[in-house]
Formats: sequence, C-alpha cells, structure tokens
Amino acid sequence: MKRIVLIIEYDGTNYVGWQVQPNGIAVQQVICEALHRLTGERLVLHASGRTDSGVHARAQVAHFDTECRIPPDKYAFALNTYLPADIRIKASFEMPGEWAAGANEFHSRFSVKRKHYRYRVLNSVHNSAFLRDTALHIHASLDIEKLNAAAALFLGEHDFAAFKASGSKAASTVRSIYASQWSQEGELLVYDVAGSGFLYNMVRIMVGTMLRIGMGYAELDTIKCALENPSRENAGDTAPAHGLTLWRVEYDEFDTERILRGSTPSPAGALPQTP
Amino acid sequence: MKRIVLIIEYDGTNYVGWQVQPNGIAVQQVICEALHRLTGERLVLHASGRTDSGVHARAQVAHFDTECRIPPDKYAFALNTYLPADIRIKASFEMPGEWAAGANEFHSRFSVKRKHYRYRVLNSVHNSAFLRDTALHIHASLDIEKLNAAAALFLGEHDFAAFKASGSKAASTVRSIYASQWSQEGELLVYDVAGSGFLYNMVRIMVGTMLRIGMGYAELDTIKCALENPSRENAGDTAPAHGLTLWRVEYDEFDTERILRGSTPSPAGALPQTP
Repeated sequence: MKRIVLIIEYDGTNYVGWQVQPNGIAVQQVICEALHRLTGERLVLHASGRTDSGVHARAQVAHFDTECRIPPDKYAFALNTYLPADIRIKASFEMPGEWAAGANEFHSRFSVKRKHYRYRVLNSVHNSAFLRDTALHIHASLDIEKLNAAAALFLGEHDFAAFKASGSKAASTVRSIYASQWSQEGELLVYDVAGSGFLYNMVRIMVGTMLRIGMGYAELDTIKCALENPSRENAGDTAPAHGLTLWRVEYDEFDTERILRGSTPSPAGALPQTP
Repeated sequence: MKRIVLIIEYDGTNYVGWQVQPNGIAVQQVICEALHRLTGERLVLHASGRTDSGVHARAQVAHFDTECRIPPDKYAFALNTYLPADIRIKASFEMPGEWAAGANEFHSRFSVKRKHYRYRVLNSVHNSAFLRDTALHIHASLDIEKLNAAAALFLGEHDFAAFKASGSKAASTVRSIYASQWSQEGELLVYDVAGSGFLYNMVRIMVGTMLRIGMGYAELDTIKCALENPSRENAGDTAPAHGLTLWRVEYDEFDTERILRGSTPSPAGALPQTP
C-alpha cells in the first residue's frame, strides 16, 4: 500500500467546490473518477480542507492510499490526461513509509501547519474580461492604507467567531493569523493571509469587513469590536467566492513550493521548511 | 452625427474571432447587438483589424457613427450591462469634429500607426488551470536566449511573405517591425512584438518558427532564409491562437494607454504620443 500525495490547481468557476454536493459537480468527484479510470480502484481522496463553490486553488493538497503500481510521480501526468483543463495535478509523490501509517502518519487535513489564502480585488471603472472569474470587481475607490490598517488588526491569536458563517460547527473559534497584508499591482489589490487554520467563510468575511472600511463605509473599530464581541452581526458581508484562492498549504513533512518549483518531485530531502 | 470610439477587451475563447462568420458567434456581432438594443440603430462597427478565432484583445479599437444622444463616455457603462462578461468596453469617447469626417477623418482601421501583439507561452511540466485559455503550454525546454536571438532577426523592414497564411491576399507583404522581444516571468515566456501592420497569421507563424528554434529543432538561419526567400514552407508552424492577444493599437489622434489609465476619457489633450 502506498500513500500518494497530489498538489492540485483548479479554477473553481465550474464546480460546487471541493467536496461532493448534491447540486453540481465537485472537484473531488472529478479527480476520484479519473483515479478510478486510472487505477481501477474506488479510492478515498482526502484534501487539506474544503473549498466553497467558485473558490479556486493554486496548490490544494490531497492524498489517497492505493495498491496500484503506477510510479508515484506519474500520477500527475496520467491523471491530467483524464481531467478537464480547469483541474491540473501539478505534482504527485509517495509519502515515505514512516509517514504513511502509524504514529507519524501524514494526513492532508490533520497534518496542516498553516494555510495561505489570496483574495483578489480589481479596483477599476470597468471589469476585466480576463479577471472576471478570479477577482472581485469594485468600482468604488478603495483606500489601500485603510485596508492595510484593517488587515493588521487580524494578526495574532483571536476568537474569530464573528467571522464564521452561521451554522458552522467548529469546536473552537480561536485561530492564529501569521500574515495579513494587502498589496497593489496597478488596478489589482491583492490580500494575502496565512493562519493556523480558518473557519467556514472566515477569509471571505474578513475581506468583506475590510472592503467596507476601505470604501469608507465603516471604521477600523468595526474589526476590534468584532474580535472582542464575537457575534456574526458585528462583522461585514461575506465577500464573493470567485475572488478567493487557496494559495498554499504548509506541512512539516514537505514543502509544496519547493516541489512546485520542480526541483524535487519526492519529499525526501525537502523536510521542515516552515519559515 | 457623432463618431464614437470604443476600447474593447475580450477573452476570445468562446468566439469565432472579431468578424462575423457563419460557424459561430463573433465579438463584433455581440457588440453590434448590444449597440442595437442601446441605440435602436443598426450600426456598422469598424475595428482596427480582425482577430482570429480564439485570439484575445486587451485593447481592440473600434468606431461607429450614430445619431444617438447618449453622452459619449456613457456607452462603455451602458454596453457593459448588455454584454457578456468575456467582452468589456474599457472606454468610449467621441472623436472631435475635425477628425469625424473629411480629409482628416479618423478610421479605426485606416488610421492605425502601429500595432502591438503579445504571445504567451507557459513553459512548465504541467499546464495551468488558470492560463489554459491565454497561454500555449509547452513542456519541452525552451532556450530564451535562442528565442531572443531569433526575435531580433525580425526587426526592421522585411518581406514577410513566408510568414503569412496561404490564401491571404495582401497587396504588399512588406512590413516594418519596431519591437520584437521575449521576456520571462517564472514559467511564463512572453513575446512582445510591435509593427506597422501584420499579415494574416503573421505573428502566430513568427512565434511557431521561433519556438522550433527555442526547442533546438531548427537553426536561427531558418528565419534569415525565410525572410530572404519569402515562401510559406520556409517558415515554421502556425502557433495556436489562444496564446495570442492584440495588446495595443497606436494612432496619432489619441493614446489608448493614457485613456485606459483613466485620466482622460476624451482624446482632446491626449494627442500624438507615438514614442
């Protein structure tokens, strides 16, 4: 039995999200079908976490266990021949034996150390034909200094209960944010956030709250208030899904960035790199 | 009667090109339908030139004459409400009277001074879910120094007869190339070319020829030979349409870049800027 890890890029526009849903096609389901065609096995594919309908991934991480004898690095090539062009396997590799089972078992979800998300806003008079599915278009003027002042307030450990979708059932709502910053490339405003983990819709509610502040419709205090009084109505709207991309997932066992750069398709020798 | 100019961005993926064709939907046709809904008139829309099926435009320029009293800068906003999201009008303005008719008449096609095209190549092991429609994926290693040595050979005035699609009926096949250069952004190789004009499929055949050289399958001499012996079989393959974008059209009458930056929606005061 081998534990195979996949690094997956997908344009979420045409999917109901990562996880199988009754109302449309899920990314997980499409990859599982391709794995079935490839291996003949009905495999269980575990990801680092779900992504919502319309949310994209630059480097989602998922794993499965198989008896199939395909060389581990060949899964990427073989799966890509079966997958639609909006889902690409960027790398595949086998977890070494000591991490494939037992006390040190690697698991795409339970072994996550940090996650990075990116949210894109196109701040321009007219939307772009090319960014229509990967950036939120906002015509109103946004103040990047205000956005960054707001973003800084999320840094550190906080109770993010005000920033989770109602109905979400996380045991604890305390999360640590390690990086939270807006940058500007012409008309494109890019928000990068890294944290120990994120509640359901948390990044989108954080962005929605910051955008109200950046447009001048709310004060910075909104965020302080929502972090101190963790009730959903204290935060802003949930920003639309299509601006959001799961950017990177960090583990102790391997460094996805190093693997994506193509130097080492196997994790051996690519151990703890968490900066 | 007003002569209205549009600057248009489109993702060409879902269209048979700019010009109306029997086998699918053309960008021109979609905009003409929107203009009809808006003005009630059946207008003739002239562009700087055609783009092929699958080719994109960042700043196509087109004009039409109308009796409609909509303020000129409002066409962009109004048309965008009728157009699909993969076609966006980035600006609209009226040509001042002295250029709207007569000896100095501005015409989107006949007044063109220079055109810029950009061709994108993703040089990576696996394709990208996000660039699948706007860059050509090449797995084989490309030598950017060879690509640039090849690109430099196109500079200046040449007979490009070897670089036009067979069946093309241009009166003269002599064109001047002012800029021809590859640059690299990670795995993305970007070719920028500017010229007095381009024959049918010319940029794509130039790119196809350079890519063979960059992969080591042909020598630099191929280009010299094809420019000196202008017959189609001396050049390389036609590179796929989806990597190509009409980037910029230059006129003496206004500067599209300045208008896109949003400072001056009217061309007055934005006169000859051709560098």
